[in-house]
Amino acid sequence: MNETPSIDRDAIRAAARRITPYLRRTPVLRLAGPDLGLPHDVILKLELQQASGSFKPRGAFNALISAGVPAAGVVAASGGNHGAAVAYAARALGVPAEIFVPEITGAAKRALIEAYGARLVVGGAAYDAARQASEARAAETGALLVHAYDQREVLEGQGTVALEFEEDAPGLRHVLVATGGGGLIGGMAGWYGTEGPRLVSVEPEGCPTLATALRDGRPVPAPVGGVAADSLGARQVGALMFPLAQRAAVAAALVPDGAIRQAQRLLWEAARVVAEPGGATALAALLSGAWVAPAGARVGIVVCGGNCEPGSVLG
Amino acid sequence: MNETPSIDRDAIRAAARRITPYLRRTPVLRLAGPDLGLPHDVILKLELQQASGSFKPRGAFNALISAGVPAAGVVAASGGNHGAAVAYAARALGVPAEIFVPEITGAAKRALIEAYGARLVVGGAAYDAARQASEARAAETGALLVHAYDQREVLEGQGTVALEFEEDAPGLRHVLVATGGGGLIGGMAGWYGTEGPRLVSVEPEGCPTLATALRDGRPVPAPVGGVAADSLGARQVGALMFPLAQRAAVAAALVPDGAIRQAQRLLWEAARVVAEPGGATALAALLSGAWVAPAGARVGIVVCGGNCEPGSVLG
Repeated sequence: MNETPSIDRDAIRAAARRITPYLRRTPVLRLAGPDLGLPHDVILKLELQQASGSFKPRGAFNALISAGVPAAGVVAASGGNHGAAVAYAARALGVPAEIFVPEITGAAKRALIEAYGARLVVGGAAYDAARQASEARAAETGALLVHAYDQREVLEGQGTVALEFEEDAPGLRHVLVATGGGGLIGGMAGWYGTEGPRLVSVEPEGCPTLATALRDGRPVPAPVGGVAADSLGARQVGALMFPLAQRAAVAAALVPDGAIRQAQRLLWEAARVVAEPGGATALAALLSGAWVAPAGARVGIVVCGGNCEPGSVLG
Repeated sequence: MNETPSIDRDAIRAAARRITPYLRRTPVLRLAGPDLGLPHDVILKLELQQASGSFKPRGAFNALISAGVPAAGVVAASGGNHGAAVAYAARALGVPAEIFVPEITGAAKRALIEAYGARLVVGGAAYDAARQASEARAAETGALLVHAYDQREVLEGQGTVALEFEEDAPGLRHVLVATGGGGLIGGMAGWYGTEGPRLVSVEPEGCPTLATALRDGRPVPAPVGGVAADSLGARQVGALMFPLAQRAAVAAALVPDGAIRQAQRLLWEAARVVAEPGGATALAALLSGAWVAPAGARVGIVVCGGNCEPGSVLG
């Protein structure tokens, strides 16, 4: 019998050992409830301050280091943040990278990918089209393909967010995380298992990937739209993350785009944090009332990315 | 004999006990040298993420709590950040505040002071004029005057930045701090004394307050100008801070405005940190070469404020 090893604490600790030399320990910041108009404090994990502006290089470095990279280099498809992360990691490791993004990917993300020295290919309406193009390209060149979320090494890398959050802010009872393809919440669910804080998946009403999957009992296609589509606009959650989310009893909350914009503005006004729409989505659940903390809650929020025009947070 | 107690570790620890319930533990963030184009890592203390967007409420809370506030409330003059901090602290403590700012104070800082419920009075070309107006007003109403830097309680409060930095990033050998009136570096010099890391005062060429004072052996008037004048534009350093800076053998470095703009852009590009010009001034010394770290240095940088239009960091 040859079972696939599970994505658990041991696997995530091993990923942390691999990637830590290349990455930052992102800060935590506790904000008092009154500063946010909330009845309780929140503790932010500022993943937007990770190298490349999101949590994504955790998974990218873990994938590249675990596999070793062929001479043809690495290929990835992305709404932008995974692509920037793979480009950053490829540069650090001295290998070439080609990144496929859809047309909705904004100028800030495109510029970032090119600034890290990768070849950028733009095409297709949303992430799924870029993913198909990237798979064809990898088959053609023999490059290593790093999936944006549905790959074991990527989930293990993203799970290190939970490892660090547990060390730096012990005793959390709820952790709110934005979900697109589910790599981040899946990796974090792997770390927490059945014992950790309750994970709450926050998704825009315009791209409800995990909410739809939990309702139907399996990953299924969902709409892709709204202000956060360039970071949360996967068509459906990954096959690998879904059992991890089920086992950890992840809850799901949906937020309107207006609450995401409000959360971007509030993060700036209260804490000088510039989050992109996907990065502000988790906080939006508290502002909209889509998720209400129970009395005595100790609430953590992952601010997962900041790859936008800085002035856009007020716009 | 009735000596004034010194601004030392005991006094700063006492200030920390007073103010901690009202304030945030600001994060530290280590950045790898290559991400900044530098030959060494730097460790940032992100004081821009303090309540009100700068380190200033540390001193403001300590002054208000130590003195107790009369019914007439509190009055302060400021380039903006001290005013916002006093307004924030006054609101938290339930007392009225009047804040005097000069005409160079930007829209973001003015809006912040009013958002915290203070009465805003704009007048005079630079900080010094606002200071005179505030003193007249306090004499008229009997309100408590909180000086922006040259007041014992204010220095003690700002000194808590060094206390925290020492705990959260032990072993620093150099700490770079932007200086205007000198409240921050004076308080930090009080904490470090002769034993701590070497403090480097970084000042815009357009407002070289401490560099001029160190050259002349006493606080003397200096020019006020340049991109950071709304936060570093005091006419001269305070009388209380100067012996503390001398005792701690503070070094001084001057930077051109172009290096300050470059540091603002780099903080955004490398770490999604939005610093106002004064907040980016300390890093500017490394970019311009005004201060060069010795081999094996372990360098800390205080990013002291972020009260600007977020889009301006790219402008």
